[in-house]
Amino acid sequence: MPPRTKPRRSFASDNNAGVHTKVMEAIAATTEGHVVAYGDDPYTEAAVALFREQFGKEVEVFFVFGGTGANVLGLKAVTEPYHAIICADTAHINLDECGAPEKFTGCKLLSLPTRDGKITVDQISPFLDAVGFEHHVQPRVISISQSTEMGTVYNPGELKKLSSFAHKNELLLHMDGARIANAAASLKANLSTITKDVGVDVLSFGGAKNGMMYGEAVIFFDRSLAKDFKYTRKQGAHLPSKMRFISVQFSALLSNDLWRENAAHANNMAKLLAQELGRIPLVEITQKVESNGVFARLPKKYIALLQKQVFFYVWNEQTSEVRFMTSFDTTPRDISDFVALVKKTLS
Amino acid sequence: MPPRTKPRRSFASDNNAGVHTKVMEAIAATTEGHVVAYGDDPYTEAAVALFREQFGKEVEVFFVFGGTGANVLGLKAVTEPYHAIICADTAHINLDECGAPEKFTGCKLLSLPTRDGKITVDQISPFLDAVGFEHHVQPRVISISQSTEMGTVYNPGELKKLSSFAHKNELLLHMDGARIANAAASLKANLSTITKDVGVDVLSFGGAKNGMMYGEAVIFFDRSLAKDFKYTRKQGAHLPSKMRFISVQFSALLSNDLWRENAAHANNMAKLLAQELGRIPLVEITQKVESNGVFARLPKKYIALLQKQVFFYVWNEQTSEVRFMTSFDTTPRDISDFVALVKKTLS
Amino acid sequence: MPPRTKPRRSFASDNNAGVHTKVMEAIAATTEGHVVAYGDDPYTEAAVALFREQFGKEVEVFFVFGGTGANVLGLKAVTEPYHAIICADTAHINLDECGAPEKFTGCKLLSLPTRDGKITVDQISPFLDAVGFEHHVQPRVISISQSTEMGTVYNPGELKKLSSFAHKNELLLHMDGARIANAAASLKANLSTITKDVGVDVLSFGGAKNGMMYGEAVIFFDRSLAKDFKYTRKQGAHLPSKMRFISVQFSALLSNDLWRENAAHANNMAKLLAQELGRIPLVEITQKVESNGVFARLPKKYIALLQKQVFFYVWNEQTSEVRFMTSFDTTPRDISDFVALVKKTLS
Amino acid sequence: MPPRTKPRRSFASDNNAGVHTKVMEAIAATTEGHVVAYGDDPYTEAAVALFREQFGKEVEVFFVFGGTGANVLGLKAVTEPYHAIICADTAHINLDECGAPEKFTGCKLLSLPTRDGKITVDQISPFLDAVGFEHHVQPRVISISQSTEMGTVYNPGELKKLSSFAHKNELLLHMDGARIANAAASLKANLSTITKDVGVDVLSFGGAKNGMMYGEAVIFFDRSLAKDFKYTRKQGAHLPSKMRFISVQFSALLSNDLWRENAAHANNMAKLLAQELGRIPLVEITQKVESNGVFARLPKKYIALLQKQVFFYVWNEQTSEVRFMTSFDTTPRDISDFVALVKKTLS
Repeated sequence: MPPRTKPRRSFASDNNAGVHTKVMEAIAATTEGHVVAYGDDPYTEAAVALFREQFGKEVEVFFVFGGTGANVLGLKAVTEPYHAIICADTAHINLDECGAPEKFTGCKLLSLPTRDGKITVDQISPFLDAVGFEHHVQPRVISISQSTEMGTVYNPGELKKLSSFAHKNELLLHMDGARIANAAASLKANLSTITKDVGVDVLSFGGAKNGMMYGEAVIFFDRSLAKDFKYTRKQGAHLPSKMRFISVQFSALLSNDLWRENAAHANNMAKLLAQELGRIPLVEITQKVESNGVFARLPKKYIALLQKQVFFYVWNEQTSEVRFMTSFDTTPRDISDFVALVKKTLS
Repeated sequence: MPPRTKPRRSFASDNNAGVHTKVMEAIAATTEGHVVAYGDDPYTEAAVALFREQFGKEVEVFFVFGGTGANVLGLKAVTEPYHAIICADTAHINLDECGAPEKFTGCKLLSLPTRDGKITVDQISPFLDAVGFEHHVQPRVISISQSTEMGTVYNPGELKKLSSFAHKNELLLHMDGARIANAAASLKANLSTITKDVGVDVLSFGGAKNGMMYGEAVIFFDRSLAKDFKYTRKQGAHLPSKMRFISVQFSALLSNDLWRENAAHANNMAKLLAQELGRIPLVEITQKVESNGVFARLPKKYIALLQKQVFFYVWNEQTSEVRFMTSFDTTPRDISDFVALVKKTLS
Repeated sequence: MPPRTKPRRSFASDNNAGVHTKVMEAIAATTEGHVVAYGDDPYTEAAVALFREQFGKEVEVFFVFGGTGANVLGLKAVTEPYHAIICADTAHINLDECGAPEKFTGCKLLSLPTRDGKITVDQISPFLDAVGFEHHVQPRVISISQSTEMGTVYNPGELKKLSSFAHKNELLLHMDGARIANAAASLKANLSTITKDVGVDVLSFGGAKNGMMYGEAVIFFDRSLAKDFKYTRKQGAHLPSKMRFISVQFSALLSNDLWRENAAHANNMAKLLAQELGRIPLVEITQKVESNGVFARLPKKYIALLQKQVFFYVWNEQTSEVRFMTSFDTTPRDISDFVALVKKTLS
Repeated sequence: MPPRTKPRRSFASDNNAGVHTKVMEAIAATTEGHVVAYGDDPYTEAAVALFREQFGKEVEVFFVFGGTGANVLGLKAVTEPYHAIICADTAHINLDECGAPEKFTGCKLLSLPTRDGKITVDQISPFLDAVGFEHHVQPRVISISQSTEMGTVYNPGELKKLSSFAHKNELLLHMDGARIANAAASLKANLSTITKDVGVDVLSFGGAKNGMMYGEAVIFFDRSLAKDFKYTRKQGAHLPSKMRFISVQFSALLSNDLWRENAAHANNMAKLLAQELGRIPLVEITQKVESNGVFARLPKKYIALLQKQVFFYVWNEQTSEVRFMTSFDTTPRDISDFVALVKKTLS
């Protein structure tokens, strides 16, 4: 078989991938017939039951169209506009949602510089000086990404530290879990071990980055926080009419550990990619590879040359860092093709 | 074949239906492989091209997840918060979006009472007294639904009158076209004949109510209005990551006039349903049946009895009016089953 | 003394008046010296104490710059964006605040037609059909104006009916008391008799329309509703830095019943004006005169002629109704001059 | 004369001061009589004319109640919610307005670390990488404070550099001029020299910190930006009803260079205070004293001791820095009393 000049699959983002076969089969099996719209249907009931198997009976689960919606609405549910949301400066909510959190919640985001996408209690503490002072926004939520936008993963101990600090100070812990499956797979943990069990209050549970077509879930571990969320979801334009088509996708993902299988595969591909790229002179891997993202520094002129051939994102123009993402369907062959291309371009 | 005790398909709403076979085939054919996310892909290009075949080369087309999103973001694109949006009191934006337009645009909705879901220039004129007076919201948009929430349809002459009035007074005409296909089919008109050609400025083009799984389009007939819409869409949490799966659905709908076929069928089924129900004593059809909705008045106690057997919405508790909707997959058999059920319940 | 061709004082609005002498003296006496800004000062403490003399020790009192601010922030304190605020269509919040309530609270206003500016339980009841239905905004606040924008006054029985209905249905009662003093004077009631004692939850207490220069108070009769209001006020840009200058004005107004004296005078002048105008052929008084506003219908051409000579507002272009307001400093001579002018213009 | 144990006037903030005599005289002279409300009166016309003498005929001037309102509304006038506002992390809009800019504009604030409250083109440039990328907020406004919150002053050259950069990149330059008079006095410049002449687009012109009771102005140097500002002001709850009382204060301030006299005095007092404090061992002056603020580092335990005796703000808990402000009425005696107190406390 002759080498391809390009990998068949992109390393630009895990949402450049298509849909996993089992997810698509679940959709196809639901095509016909009528059920009540907006979630009052047996498919949705079944999917919620599967979530409750993972997280316990008392959780409240709401499906929405996409990840930005999940984050923004989950945050809205637990904030007033004079609150502050504390997060990493690399957080998706801070950087990649075009200001959706500010627009929809009215809150200020207080962002913290990080080397690896993870924030710590020591960084957060000084914001508490503002508590009770009406001129300053009032800290209310710590929002973290798991896995982080830098491909790293918080371990359960780190998560517990954050939630203990939060709860001691009347804050809540929000987790952007667009890639929660990758984190759980990386830690060989259950989903609840890194969320509910370590004190997360609100979780955006990602689907589209792990083999689904569309759909995310907002999960409240404290039911009282969800009291009026159905109105917030509808007013936020994120109540899908034909809800069942999101529900069956989640059911597929949560059955037979498909979520873990997909995520573990993507993680493994990332490890392999980092390993191979790391051997190329001029390429420096800049972050630990703990999930499905690989960050690398390349000389600027080669970045431009590479981008002419394949599409990927420059993460930081200033530091000349790029990001490569693997997905559930990345193959070893994709990686060897890509690595060959990089080698050729850099030489 | 023995009569069923219930119709197989619901008359509660056209979004209780599933997905049309051809739409599902288009999705299935796209399952594999990588394309750039967020709409920079050939599937989306193709779908936009099909829209431009309908509406002309100069239109700008943006896909979003759902109908409320389409309405709210389209309106946001052309308003400032001190503007007023004028609409029927029955309008989806006024009644059924849980205040999403007010929340996202900041605007006040000025709603007008209607008998049939249609508003007229004479009703709108008095609002112009407010122009220039800083204490009052400033009229900016007339928003109409086509077909209306009452199952009626504006004819091209009526639309032209509204747009002429709007443009003469520096207002814009927004059309909530969640059921634009039903309106065009009803009028045996082209899509552009009842939108672009009669002066509509911004259109929400519905997909989910006409055989799609999810997805709506926001269409700007004046390109300058769309200048920054990509940011509004992203900030509005309505930029789908795996965009191609909306795009191929629209391509299916716009190919071989599938949109018209589906809508005409639903319209015909509504006519049949109204005809049959209209013959039942105690049932009064209250609106002209011009698209796929049938409104009827029934004695209150029978509404309750019927609702115990099949799910449908009471439109107006005060006037004892109910709504029945047909969809692309409604069959004559569904109708005869349902009519039999109503007859039995009312006797 | 020769008759003046124009009254010395305007009947356009009670906020065209200046400042009452005693209020100005209080300001002047406070000009010098330093106190802590933003309300943590003895003048503010004293003013709040005077409010508590009127309304009871447990009330929470916050001063803001103006009336629109008072309404909007008071409403924000007790609503979420998916709530509805129910009010008369003539309400200041609905008509005369350029959409500020929608912009700042995100809520929809559900407005009710009224003949006299007063709304009733029967009109409000149907909105409760929406409770629990996520597609509809959720009723949360009934907002009334006392005295109303039509110059009428709710009596304690009417108020009690509204608050009982509200509380039975988990709604709150908000009162726009921009002219609360006029209402109390009209009813010969105490301030608490028509607010706290009849179940009002949140009150905008007006100052500027009753002899103050600027400043309004937001009063919470249930302290728990005010828990975070200091942040809402600051974020709403209504925390005055040199707060003392509002505080001393309120102290003047609440001392020696100056508030009642001013309001009663304005009310009496309105009665006189209505009496005199009512005798003129072609002038029809259209509302009961229960506070300081007089509404009258005049032939359109005479309105235009009159407006060339004195400034006043046409209330309703469609019905040819105009509004005249009296204020704390209106004199009988102003009235006789104005009536003479009207007579001359209409003859 | 025996030494006082405390200074008569506070150094906590320039808004702890009262009102300048000439301003109060102007108010008192306006107490009586009726004029049209909301700014359509001769007093307001006169005040605007005085602003135009300073800034040129083509500027648009709008009075509002306070400084946060001026900033927030001025920014709202020139932004869409998907825009970013770039500012110093110490900026009043970023730190001290309880998130009002985010709440009212929907924009994200991109804040830059500074040592002296001043930001530079080099710091801003990287944000331009986001232009055109729909996932990121779009830079639209550079907002600076003049004088800064750290008591420093941008010179005309620095301002010109910022505005040139802004305009070359389709950004606007907003100036929070709560203390613009102090800056002009410090630079011995005209007001227009450091605003209009160096390319500022929108200015918050402060009154309350320079001897007024209340009131700020929003000034647009490009008239087209102000087109609909009257609606934004009203919807923002910042249209004063008895506008004349703000107008006459501004007229007093702009007559006979009272603005400069007040500001120069405060500046001189700050210089004197810094000089005296700087001589005390254990006190370190941390910022150049270019306007009316003095920043100093003191050992933590002495800060607490001092605060028990006089009220002032700790600027930064982490670095143990405090802020002292002088005002138009600070006297040399206040300073000597205060310095004596500090000396006594620290020894």
